Parts: sequence; structure tokens; C-alpha cells
Amino acid sequence: MDVAIVGGSGYGGVELIRFLYHHPHVDQIKVVSHSKANERFSDIYPHMKDHVDLTMESMSVEAISQYVDVVFFATPANVSSKWMPELIKSGVKCIDLSGDFRLKDQEVYEEWYGYDAADAETLKEAVYGLTEENREAVKQAQLIANPGCYPTATLLGLMPAVHHKLIDLNSIIIDGKTGASGAGRSLSQNVHYSEMNENTKAYKLGAHKHIPEIEQWLSKTASEEVTVQFTPHIVPMTRGIMTTIYGNLSTDYSQQKMNDLYQDYYKNDPFVKVYTNNHYPQTKEVYGSNYCAIAVHVDERTNKLTVISVIDNLVKGASGQAIQNFNIMHGFDEKTGLELLPIFP
Amino acid sequence: MDVAIVGGSGYGGVELIRFLYHHPHVDQIKVVSHSKANERFSDIYPHMKDHVDLTMESMSVEAISQYVDVVFFATPANVSSKWMPELIKSGVKCIDLSGDFRLKDQEVYEEWYGYDAADAETLKEAVYGLTEENREAVKQAQLIANPGCYPTATLLGLMPAVHHKLIDLNSIIIDGKTGASGAGRSLSQNVHYSEMNENTKAYKLGAHKHIPEIEQWLSKTASEEVTVQFTPHIVPMTRGIMTTIYGNLSTDYSQQKMNDLYQDYYKNDPFVKVYTNNHYPQTKEVYGSNYCAIAVHVDERTNKLTVISVIDNLVKGASGQAIQNFNIMHGFDEKTGLELLPIFP
Amino acid sequence: MDVAIVGGSGYGGVELIRFLYHHPHVDQIKVVSHSKANERFSDIYPHMKDHVDLTMESMSVEAISQYVDVVFFATPANVSSKWMPELIKSGVKCIDLSGDFRLKDQEVYEEWYGYDAADAETLKEAVYGLTEENREAVKQAQLIANPGCYPTATLLGLMPAVHHKLIDLNSIIIDGKTGASGAGRSLSQNVHYSEMNENTKAYKLGAHKHIPEIEQWLSKTASEEVTVQFTPHIVPMTRGIMTTIYGNLSTDYSQQKMNDLYQDYYKNDPFVKVYTNNHYPQTKEVYGSNYCAIAVHVDERTNKLTVISVIDNLVKGASGQAIQNFNIMHGFDEKTGLELLPIFP
Amino acid sequence: MDVAIVGGSGYGGVELIRFLYHHPHVDQIKVVSHSKANERFSDIYPHMKDHVDLTMESMSVEAISQYVDVVFFATPANVSSKWMPELIKSGVKCIDLSGDFRLKDQEVYEEWYGYDAADAETLKEAVYGLTEENREAVKQAQLIANPGCYPTATLLGLMPAVHHKLIDLNSIIIDGKTGASGAGRSLSQNVHYSEMNENTKAYKLGAHKHIPEIEQWLSKTASEEVTVQFTPHIVPMTRGIMTTIYGNLSTDYSQQKMNDLYQDYYKNDPFVKVYTNNHYPQTKEVYGSNYCAIAVHVDERTNKLTVISVIDNLVKGASGQAIQNFNIMHGFDEKTGLELLPIFP
Repeated sequence: MDVAIVGGSGYGGVELIRFLYHHPHVDQIKVVSHSKANERFSDIYPHMKDHVDLTMESMSVEAISQYVDVVFFATPANVSSKWMPELIKSGVKCIDLSGDFRLKDQEVYEEWYGYDAADAETLKEAVYGLTEENREAVKQAQLIANPGCYPTATLLGLMPAVHHKLIDLNSIIIDGKTGASGAGRSLSQNVHYSEMNENTKAYKLGAHKHIPEIEQWLSKTASEEVTVQFTPHIVPMTRGIMTTIYGNLSTDYSQQKMNDLYQDYYKNDPFVKVYTNNHYPQTKEVYGSNYCAIAVHVDERTNKLTVISVIDNLVKGASGQAIQNFNIMHGFDEKTGLELLPIFP
Repeated sequence: MDVAIVGGSGYGGVELIRFLYHHPHVDQIKVVSHSKANERFSDIYPHMKDHVDLTMESMSVEAISQYVDVVFFATPANVSSKWMPELIKSGVKCIDLSGDFRLKDQEVYEEWYGYDAADAETLKEAVYGLTEENREAVKQAQLIANPGCYPTATLLGLMPAVHHKLIDLNSIIIDGKTGASGAGRSLSQNVHYSEMNENTKAYKLGAHKHIPEIEQWLSKTASEEVTVQFTPHIVPMTRGIMTTIYGNLSTDYSQQKMNDLYQDYYKNDPFVKVYTNNHYPQTKEVYGSNYCAIAVHVDERTNKLTVISVIDNLVKGASGQAIQNFNIMHGFDEKTGLELLPIFP
Repeated sequence: MDVAIVGGSGYGGVELIRFLYHHPHVDQIKVVSHSKANERFSDIYPHMKDHVDLTMESMSVEAISQYVDVVFFATPANVSSKWMPELIKSGVKCIDLSGDFRLKDQEVYEEWYGYDAADAETLKEAVYGLTEENREAVKQAQLIANPGCYPTATLLGLMPAVHHKLIDLNSIIIDGKTGASGAGRSLSQNVHYSEMNENTKAYKLGAHKHIPEIEQWLSKTASEEVTVQFTPHIVPMTRGIMTTIYGNLSTDYSQQKMNDLYQDYYKNDPFVKVYTNNHYPQTKEVYGSNYCAIAVHVDERTNKLTVISVIDNLVKGASGQAIQNFNIMHGFDEKTGLELLPIFP
Repeated sequence: MDVAIVGGSGYGGVELIRFLYHHPHVDQIKVVSHSKANERFSDIYPHMKDHVDLTMESMSVEAISQYVDVVFFATPANVSSKWMPELIKSGVKCIDLSGDFRLKDQEVYEEWYGYDAADAETLKEAVYGLTEENREAVKQAQLIANPGCYPTATLLGLMPAVHHKLIDLNSIIIDGKTGASGAGRSLSQNVHYSEMNENTKAYKLGAHKHIPEIEQWLSKTASEEVTVQFTPHIVPMTRGIMTTIYGNLSTDYSQQKMNDLYQDYYKNDPFVKVYTNNHYPQTKEVYGSNYCAIAVHVDERTNKLTVISVIDNLVKGASGQAIQNFNIMHGFDEKTGLELLPIFP
């Protein structure tokens, strides 16, 4: 099976390659990069020398649809929406790591992203690729809208409680902490080493693009309109996201019962680990791997639920989940090529 | 004026010395250390060579009360409570950076700290040293219970809204992020470099000793019982605390009005900075200094208030605030010796 | 094939397991730990939950030699030397990641390590496992003395120049920079987060145990006594070693010729990459992988050679090279189980 | 006394202000910035809110020479050389933190910097501001060429040995390690957080601009042509430089004698600390301060001298030394405004 990665010169791209390089069902990998066309991949990522020594190409729907079976988009917002209609028509399967096809409501997209939304027809094709929640739809999909990093950690952390209506849906507060790699390879003052090292910052309070994505899935799940408070923070590390999620318990529920519920909920999901032994998962414990690790805390003094959920933002929060969806779309075991253990320490 | 620092071999101690060394009204500094008595201070802190070349002493109430005017305790819990009755009787002024005199209710102390509480009489003397809120009492005090790091950031972040009853008091959620230095100089797996670097962890969910301290002051301020949800996190940096504080707005209040309220509230407090220009303060922006920096976010979609409050945990969260109180107790300008600007970057 | 890891609760142990877990020729893994016997491995390494849920055992030569084919020692100095004679007699193969069998001269060991040397007979069996230089001997070995982290980076960086007598052997200066993980999981002030973060330190000047190891192999290679100057430094990162190696050129040799020589020297070594395009390898470029990356600089102004050599200290500098040797000892392709690409960024 | 800082929007500028703000002899501070003219200083450095709320100005020699007594240049190469002739004629004193006036030989400047050299006449005025070595000349100077960060650490580390001819001058090897702040506030891939964190890199081997600066002063001191090998490295921290300096001892000299020599050499220099108790100074031990800390190691096995020298690159390596020179130029105690202790941890 041959694949192309559009936007392959960014961190999402190089991380896709780390996994696809050893994937038993992947043969050829093409890398498309607008800004780096005709450059050698190993010149911009010297650690890939001797492994991936290809020349990056510029985008051509014709070439891609002719030569590859699957296209991954690891592009900024407002790129994949341009190419997708034609690609979808060509019959090639597409997995979009950007946000262009995640929001079903075009107006909401335009309000939060500030770009024109994808065209309505193509948008209808898009299946939200939160694998654990949407496996059946992913199987049939031609176009996957791969979830954002914060929504992946948040929604996996919330789903058991939400499905069982254990929390007041409008009390949900999400406090996110991310490393720098989520900001990508493009330079910015925000992730300039001297100003990010030894520093913790909050950003985009109440204004982060992942808010409508979280709300859309929560609303769909709960069959009612849900609004959340979300504050992202950047902490001095490269990889990893933790979301600390708070909600008012809508019913009496013991720590033990909550643990059992969560453990049971994910018992068939190979990439979700639930800790019930008073251990709260740490971002380093999933470093470089496709796992999401979760623990819940029921506070009897306050009658609130706190959920700790961690992922590697570049793996389960981006490229790893994309490959998990790729596996499911093609009938492979979803773990194929993704079983690397976390690197610790 | 001569001072002694008990527990001076820890980070709180060395940080007190950094400021007291240049303090215009401080002459002699004695350092008392149980575990390091008779060692030279500059052997355990080589950067103090040529500056502070004294030998540490073991504790003697007699010697201390005879030779010094003020005693700072920078000790772990359950130390100062042992020495304080006798010291107080001797007439010496005491500033306790530990938690032993912060909680007025002995039972609450014993429940959260797991030690015997300080004796009731001495406890009555203790004045909670959150300077900006308690300046008048500090002026008269002989014994200061210097606040914890998280409570300092949290309470300064909340006071304007609480005093004006703008939030539902039982909706308060505090998400704290601290660097490693708060854990002190004692070795532990938790702050072992290889396991803290490139890692974010949550700890002591619903169980941190600073919870009753925050609740006590909030309850006193609001004249009603207040319960808070508090989740501390450790992020990979040495210094700095950010608390991200959430509350349900109990009334309609615009961003502009909230900004004005906060700015006005702190207009006479030299160490509190309120940002109202869409800038959210970062921990690095107070690094090494005694400032607390605050910004508020009013979210009209969710009707919630979010407050970002940052301090240097070792300065405004410990030694700096102790010296601020020391200044006030002695009638000095509260800024004396504390005006160092933050180090950036 | 069944294996045991003695000292499996340290970083060397958990890193062996990361690779052995997926190794196609490894079935059972036993973990022996003196200090953690009867504890569950996933309790001390929560990220291994659901993967490695075994109970650690105490050491028994009888049990080990009966049930396993190969024993890895990931122990501190002065442990493997005690158990080895009996194990070797039992016929089991042993790979020792500690320094106990690296130095052929017992007196030198005792001088630099401060312990009794291993017994002479067992010592004679030991083959120095610097794979690229000693592949033939490794093939036949029953006991491998797996090289230290600094010697691996240093010797691979030096061998082409030394074999071709291009530098004055007594001019060699090695400036090493390591992350914290080399110091292991045991707590120490040196790798206490607050004192290692944002800090660079030199240590053990002229006194590091790896000096005689480097000198022994250089002397053997050059057939003359070689003395080196070596200064290790600890820099604020978890993984990675860079050695910057200096030597006086003993002959005129252009940059181009030196590049060609190095590239040619390692052309059949799958884990050594030589950069000749003015790119100097960075420690992050081998993160988590078994690669050693090298570049050379010929300075015409000074007539000196500078070599930059980087490895992941826990992989090529310890566990990865151990598995590389394990593969060769058993006739497997040396890359088996080790082909993971570096994690970047 | 009124001063102007040209290039004040960079790290050198904000660090000058941190010290000048409290300097007892400095009244007004003007900030000149080409790229940020008319912006408020506290908008680009929010931590300066309430302290330095001035508007940055564009450059005007006329305005500056009329209103200020001293001009600091904290500009990139090839800026100060343009303005200096006119400024010098106007009689104002100038302290240039850039490299434009450090090299006396115009050809050497042009070769290493790649720009046109400063004009010969103005160049003649320039006094190299390595304070400890050049105090008398600094006193009389109108124009100071403030030394580079690496040269400051290196030369202070070498001077005692060089003055006493204890090492072979052409054997000198300098291995430098710096934090990111030396690269300034301008964005570059090199100091992009995700690619600098958890990474050690060597750069500009044999090609760094500080090489001729080091050689010039060594040659002048030794009255013979000296050539050095210098390899700079960037390690994952914000502040701090360590240079590890190697040289062949040209004579028998014990550790004790070397310690005594170094200690004696710097006995009247308030900002140089020599450690002789087997403690090797660490970069964190001078963090935020103007100290240079040094220790020497005499290796009897190899007959080599190793010197460890650390500074804060932004203080003694830039702004602090500039103010030290400013003090001397004006007859103030050289410690004025610079006595802040290092921040630790």
C-alpha cells in the first residue's frame, strides 16, 4: 500500500513517517511539501539520513490519486479543504490531521477558525476519527477528520461519565497543559526557547479552536447542547498533553464505582489505560506511544469528579491516531505498527 | 537588626538570605540547622562563598532570644510549633514560613497535616501573613503565619471577586501548576531529574494541605463556609506557580468592569500587578521577584470567570512575603529590600 | 529464548525491556531485583501496566541457570563479579552492562573502581562488547562486558583516526556531555531537579571510571600505551551523550579525505551514521534509538581534528548495544528488535 | 546621569535595564530600537509594566548626544560601527556590547564577521572592556568594546596561567557550553523550543567569531601569536556559559600551587571567585549575577591543565560587565548596582 503525506515537513509529518516506516502494510511513502518541494527530507530532518532519503514533491492531485492509496494531510488549517473535493472524487482515501473537516457546522468553523469552511458535500463525507468512540463509522469512511490533541485527551477522559450521565454537562471545566510540539515547527516568540523554558503560560482563554470540537462531540453524545470552559496552557516540555477535567457529580457515585465504570468502559480498547490504584498518569508515561492513560478522582467533600487524562500530543493526539484509523479503514488490526512502548525515562 | 533563620539550609532559607543580605535594616544573620549544624553555609551552597561564610548552629531558644530580634522559621511542618511557645514568651518576633500556625482550628490541622497541632494559646497569637489582605494585623503581630505558595497565588487571584460577591463561592475550582523547588531540597523520586524533566504530573488530588488554608480565608472573608476543589500539578521548571481559578459568575459582569474592579482593588499594593490588555501573566514574568501578576477572563458563552495568577513560589510564595511582613512589622516601607525586578528571560 | 535481567528495576533494566518486549526471538523475561523482590514491575514503572505485569524475583543462580538462556546484568559496580563465576560454569550466556568485566587488569579496576576485581579466570572469558570493533569475538563469547556510555561514543568517534594513525595519540582530549539518566534511578543531590535544571556542571575531572576503559581499548588498538584527558559534564536533559574529541593531526589530511575515511570505515555498520555535509549530529537526533552519529572537523588553522559523536546513553550506550551483542552471539541479524527510528522532536 | 540603550528591545537591552533601573547614579533611561520604535517597552516585555513604561525611540545621534551622558549599544554586528564616529565626536561615552570594536585588525574583523570593519580612527579609540585585565585603560576610555560572552569566561579562566607562562600556548583547546539566550530574541530553528529542549548541539566548529577575539587578547598578553581550538555547544538552558579549557602544562606545577596562583591572581577582583576545595563551579551558581567562578584541575597523569570557568552570559558576559565598565569609567565603585547575589536554585 502506498501513501502520501501532504505537509510532510512538519512535526505531524515526520511523526507519521516514524510509524509508517515500519508499518508492515505500507510500501512507498511520498512526501508533499509546498514550502520545501524539491528539498531532500533528510536535509531538513538529518536524523532520517539513511532511512528516508526521498525528495519532497509539490502537490498534484493527479499524481497523488494515481500513485497512492491513502493521503494523510498534516497541514495547517485551510489547506486540506481546498484539495479534498477533487481527491475524494478520485476515490483515494484521506486522513486529515488538520481541523478543516472536524466541525460539521460551517458557520461554527468560520467563526472559530476565521477561514472559509470546507464545501458542504465533502464535509458530509467526513467521519470524526476519535477511534474508540467511532470505530464503526471509521471502518466505512473515505475521509477521516482526525481529532485534535486536546479533544482526544478530553473526550476519552469524559466519555464514560457522559455516557452514563454522571456529571452535570454544563459544569465541565477543562484545564489543559501541553508541550511545545503542538505549536509545530514554525517559529514563534511563544515557543522561542528562552521564553518558553522555565515558564508556564495560559493562552487563548475561552477562544481555542478545540472548544467547538469538544462541544460538538459532547453535544452529539448527550443529545443536548453542551458548553465547556477550556483553558489551554503551555508548559516547558516538548511532548505530552494532560487535561485535568472537572465536573459536578449529578448523582452519588463512589470512587470504587467510578473506577469500575471507567475500567469496564475501555476494557476492549487496546490504547486506553485506566489507572485505579491511586496512581495518576503522567505525560511521560505515554511518551512516544499511542496510549491514552486516565484516572478519575471522586471528591466526597465537594461532590465533584476530576479526571486526569494524558496522551502524547503528536501520537494519540495526531499521527498515531491517524494510523490507528488507517488500520481500521483497511481492516488491519488497529494496533498494527503502533505497539511501541513509551520511552521512559 | 539581627535575625535568625531556623531551617536555613533549605531553599526557603537560602532565598531569605538572598534578600536579607542586602536589606538595609538587617545586620547579623544567624543560620540554624538541625541536620547541618557546624557545617559552613558556603559548603552546602557554594554560590554563597565570599558572601555568607558563616557556620550553621543548632537550635537554642536561649541563644536566639538573646541575640536576635526576629526569627524566621523555614522548617518542615511540625517543627516551629515545638519551639514557638517559648520563643513567643521571650518577646522575640517570629515569622513562620511553615504551615504550623496557619490553621486556626486544631482539628483541621491534625486532619490535614497528620501531626499534633500547635498549642492553642500560641496559635491565638498567630496572624495570617497574606500581606495585602491583612496589613493592619501584621503591623501589630508578634507571630506571623506566613501563607503557603498556592494559597498566596489563589487568594490574591480571588479576593476582588469574593469581596464583591461576584462568583458562586461553592463553584470555585483551582488548578495549580508549580515548579520543583516547592518540594524543597530533600531528595524524592518525584523530583528526580530524569522523571520530572519532560513530564507533567497531578498529585494529591483533593488532599493537599493548602486546601483548608484556602478555605479558611475564603470562609472568613465571605462569612460563610466555603469548599474548593484544588488540583496541584508539577510541571518541569524550578520556580514559579500559576493558579488557574474558575468560578461561576453569580451576576452579569463585563470583562471591562471586571478588569476595572481588579485594577482598582490592588491600586495601592506595590507587589500586585493586574493586566487588563489581554496579556495573561506567565510565571517567568515574576521569576526571582516578589510580584504577583493577575489577569481575569470573563467568558460570556459560559458565564464563568477564569483568573490567572502567578508568583515565584519561593519569593511571594515564601521568603519574599516573609520579608514583606517583616518590613511591615517593623514600620519599614514594605518594599524595602524587595524591589528586585524579575529576571527575564 | 528466555532471558533474565538482573537489576531490572533501574533505567538500564526498563530500557532492556522496552526492546526485548518486541524482540521476535525472546519469549519469557524474568526480572531480578535485590531491593524490589516480590514487588510488581508495573508498580514501580506504571507505564508498563498491561505490558509487563510480572513480579520481580530475588537472585538465584540455580533458578536462573535452569530457566533462562541469557542473563543481562544491569547492576551497579561490584555485583555481577560476585555471581558471574557460578553462572558462567552453568553454561548460561551473560551480558554485563556494568563495569565489572571491562578492565582486563585487576589492579587498574581496583584503583579506579575501589572494589575488589572480578576473579581472574572469569575475567579472561569476558569479551569487550564494542560491537562495531569486536564483532568476531562477540560471536564466540559466553560473557560480554558491555561498554560504558562515554567509551562507546568516544571510541566509535576515534577508531577510524586511530587505526589510520592520523592523530598524535597522547594529545587526545575528550569533553563529554551527558543527560541525567546515566546517573540512574537512585536519588542524589546532583540530579535533584531544582539543582540540575538550568545548570551545566563538570564532574570527576581526570577521575571518571571510563578513563581506563577508553585508554585500554585505545592502547590495544594502537599497540602502545595511550593516556587521555577526559572531562565529563552533566547538562540539563534526560537522555543523550555527546563527546567532543580533540586530537593533534599527525599528518596533513584534508576535510574531504577525513570525511571519506570515516564514511568508508563505517560503511557496513548499520548503527553508525557519518555526516559529511557540514551537519554536526545532535543528541536529539539519536533519541531513543541505537544509532551513533558522527561528524569530523579538520581545522587547518590549528592542525587539529575535532570529532563530534552522539549516542543515546541508555540505548547504544547501554541496553541497545547489549541487545546488539545478544543478536550477534545468537546468530541473529544484529539489527533485530533494534530498528526503531529516533523520536524527533 | 542619563543613559540611552540602543537596541534595547533585545535580551541585552532588557538585562541592562534590570540593573540600571536600581543604579544609584542613573536617572533617565532612553531606549532606542530600530524595529520597535514608538512601541511601549512594557508591551514587548510585560514583566516591566509599572517599572519601565517608556516608549522606544528611533535612533538620532543628535538627540542622543544632546540628552544623554552614556550610550550602550546592545545591537547585532554591523550597527554600532555606523553610528560610532559621530557619537564619539559628540563627546558622549559609549559602551558597545556588540563585536564591532573588539578586533583591532580590520581585516580579521571582515574575515570573521563578513561585514565592513569600523573606521580605523574610531577603532583606535576602542578599549577592550575585559574589566579585570584592563581596568586602567577602561578608566580613561570614551569607547568601550565590551567583550563577548565566551571570551570573558575563557580569558578570565586562562589569564593566571598565561601570564605565568604555565601552559603551552598553542595547545589551548576551549570547549564552550552556552544556554539559548546568547542567541538573542530573534527567532531561529536552532533555538526553537522543541528542537533545543532535551538536546545538545555543537556549532560553528573552528568558525565562531569569538575565536579571533580570544586569540587577540592571548597574543597581546603573551606577546606572541596564539592560535586556539574552540568548539561552542548549545545546551538546553536559558542562561549560563561554561568554558572547559585545556592546555599542556609547560612546567611541573602542583594542584596546590595552581590553586594558590589563581586565588592570588584574583584576590582584588570582586567579581571573580576561585574555588580551591574540589568544588567545580556550575553555571547555576552565578545565575543572574555578575560573578565569574573558576576552578582549576592539574592532572598529573596527563600533565595537562583543565580550567572550568562559568558566567551568566547575559550579565558578566554582556550587560553586567558593561555596567562594571560604566562604573569604572565614571569613578564609581565597580560593584555599584551589581551586587545582586545569584538566584539559586
